[in-house]
Amino acid sequence: MTRLVATYRVACAPGELRGLAEALALEQSVEVPRAVVRDAFVEREVMGQVAALRPGADGVHEVDLALAAATTGHDAAQMLNMLFGNASLLPQVELVDVVLPASLRAAFAGPRFGIAGLRDRLGVHGRPLTCAALKPQGLSPERLAALCAQLARAGIDVIKDDHGLADQTYAPFAQRVAACQAAIERVAAETGHRAAYAPSLVGSPRRLAVQARQARDAGAALVLVAPALVGMPAFAELVAQDLDVPVLAHPAYAGAARVAPPLLLGKLFRLLGADAVIFPHAGGRFAYSAATCAAIAHAARAPWDGMAAALPVPAGGMTLERVPELVRTYGRDTMLLIGGSLLADPAGVGERAARFAALVAGCAEEVHS
Amino acid sequence: MTRLVATYRVACAPGELRGLAEALALEQSVEVPRAVVRDAFVEREVMGQVAALRPGADGVHEVDLALAAATTGHDAAQMLNMLFGNASLLPQVELVDVVLPASLRAAFAGPRFGIAGLRDRLGVHGRPLTCAALKPQGLSPERLAALCAQLARAGIDVIKDDHGLADQTYAPFAQRVAACQAAIERVAAETGHRAAYAPSLVGSPRRLAVQARQARDAGAALVLVAPALVGMPAFAELVAQDLDVPVLAHPAYAGAARVAPPLLLGKLFRLLGADAVIFPHAGGRFAYSAATCAAIAHAARAPWDGMAAALPVPAGGMTLERVPELVRTYGRDTMLLIGGSLLADPAGVGERAARFAALVAGCAEEVHS
Repeated sequence: MTRLVATYRVACAPGELRGLAEALALEQSVEVPRAVVRDAFVEREVMGQVAALRPGADGVHEVDLALAAATTGHDAAQMLNMLFGNASLLPQVELVDVVLPASLRAAFAGPRFGIAGLRDRLGVHGRPLTCAALKPQGLSPERLAALCAQLARAGIDVIKDDHGLADQTYAPFAQRVAACQAAIERVAAETGHRAAYAPSLVGSPRRLAVQARQARDAGAALVLVAPALVGMPAFAELVAQDLDVPVLAHPAYAGAARVAPPLLLGKLFRLLGADAVIFPHAGGRFAYSAATCAAIAHAARAPWDGMAAALPVPAGGMTLERVPELVRTYGRDTMLLIGGSLLADPAGVGERAARFAALVAGCAEEVHS
Repeated sequence: MTRLVATYRVACAPGELRGLAEALALEQSVEVPRAVVRDAFVEREVMGQVAALRPGADGVHEVDLALAAATTGHDAAQMLNMLFGNASLLPQVELVDVVLPASLRAAFAGPRFGIAGLRDRLGVHGRPLTCAALKPQGLSPERLAALCAQLARAGIDVIKDDHGLADQTYAPFAQRVAACQAAIERVAAETGHRAAYAPSLVGSPRRLAVQARQARDAGAALVLVAPALVGMPAFAELVAQDLDVPVLAHPAYAGAARVAPPLLLGKLFRLLGADAVIFPHAGGRFAYSAATCAAIAHAARAPWDGMAAALPVPAGGMTLERVPELVRTYGRDTMLLIGGSLLADPAGVGERAARFAALVAGCAEEVHS
């Protein structure tokens, strides 16, 4: 029978590890004491099994559980349930990795464009991509569109809505998106450079579907969505059923989860359909470690059963000064996102954005990734 | 202008508190450095404000932020975004409470039945309600229905699917729900006691809507949903648009969030429409403290702008032996959920379930809640 393997980090006394692992295998499958499992089919085909124990010297151990793929119903919500539903209520347990059988992998979209498709769509090859953000929220559609034009004129590849932009009275979604996309087109007619605009979709599932349609009608080249915020099952469904453009995933609310960031941001967001994944780079406002960032980028890009790779997008307080370091760290297949610091001096936005674009173009000569 | 007040617990040196609070107010609203906010409207109507600082002796402090209600777009996903989107990525910050202005409160369903409506529907007054679970997953619809009949015959009030039951090949949703509801009806015809069956709805948003329809067609008296698992915005939409029966909320995946359990399980689940809220009682398999449990129950039942109260449902490894303690702790307006321990001896399920029902009926004489 087909099983997925879920890996948990567990803090306990060494003598308790085996018992805790066995309890976890029951909790994440049949959710009854072992003695209550009397049916041969349930025991063989449904009940979770402890596949491996890797005791750690520091009281933190790893447990691999083999969980029956059939228990997930091949659905995103139910897969999360089997991976970490009740176990999430145990403070000493963290979900760190999952290996899926091909049949379960195939139930999810994965990146439909991936790094290669995104590059083709945007016409950017051989260097990192650049990304800037429209903010602060509270500006009118016209003011956001003017900023969008400024950044597009500077040669930025991707201009995304700040993830705080939603469907608010001061800048309703449909008007904002139409205005920003029109700005992109105006600059393209003027300069020949058509930047890709990524509106932020956020809301309950039916509002997301409406926003996806409005973004498509406006001609937006890609979209921004925060999977943890809208809910991972809603994200998966949106990608699979409502979107025909690449998807940039935002980490909002994802940090709340006691799920290892490389698994959540790198692997699960990719599995559910993110083509590019924004995450907080080390030394920015959010202080993820360099090792965590490297692991996220690796999970996003690593070969995985023929699934397209997702583009890592380090962000969270980046500046022009850090561009060389970012390019050295992540290589060519990355997108650099600089938000607020490009906007610090209102008169200098265009100039700073142009320096950003030029810097990245220049860095590309040196990288080999 | 209208603001909501969000409270965060923040771990930092006392000298850093003011600066961190101010950074948090920007992060959770405009997401740019203060100097970049030059527009008078944005500054006055959109930018977050530090409303209070309560330094703690132990290096853990409380910060109240006043966030503009307009930034939420009166949507569940965007409200989460403004409450804890980027702040969730800061490991030293926990979201502990929120006070909503009436206009924002009114954007969400709240419990549509609440404790009073649930009691009326189930015809149970003056004592705690009893609840048992159908498990383990892996059993066929016929075997689950037989167990359902056994528990109904014993006089249990609410019989819920285990939250691990989804739409799986070994017990497809529609067949399972029809079989279990038919068992309820058979027992009602036999004995006059019609237990309420709560099928577990789990899946991506469109699958949830289909399951809601199938549950209604079968005649299920209420439903079980895990808001954190399906995504809180999807949960809110499901309740508001697809369900006309009471909703029992399950805590699966909710423990993953660095959001205080009384806020998440008690307040937010209630706000979004849960009529009853399952949570792990102290001393069970999940070890929430007695204080946390009391705070969850309080948040679920406390007066709140005329919103209906939600029924607290302590669970997670409860046994018959703990019934008196549970009734003493939670009083009359509660539902006691005993899962696996009722099923320990296959021959004795009916007898143990009947003792559960009788015990709770007996306890009721003593409580005054």
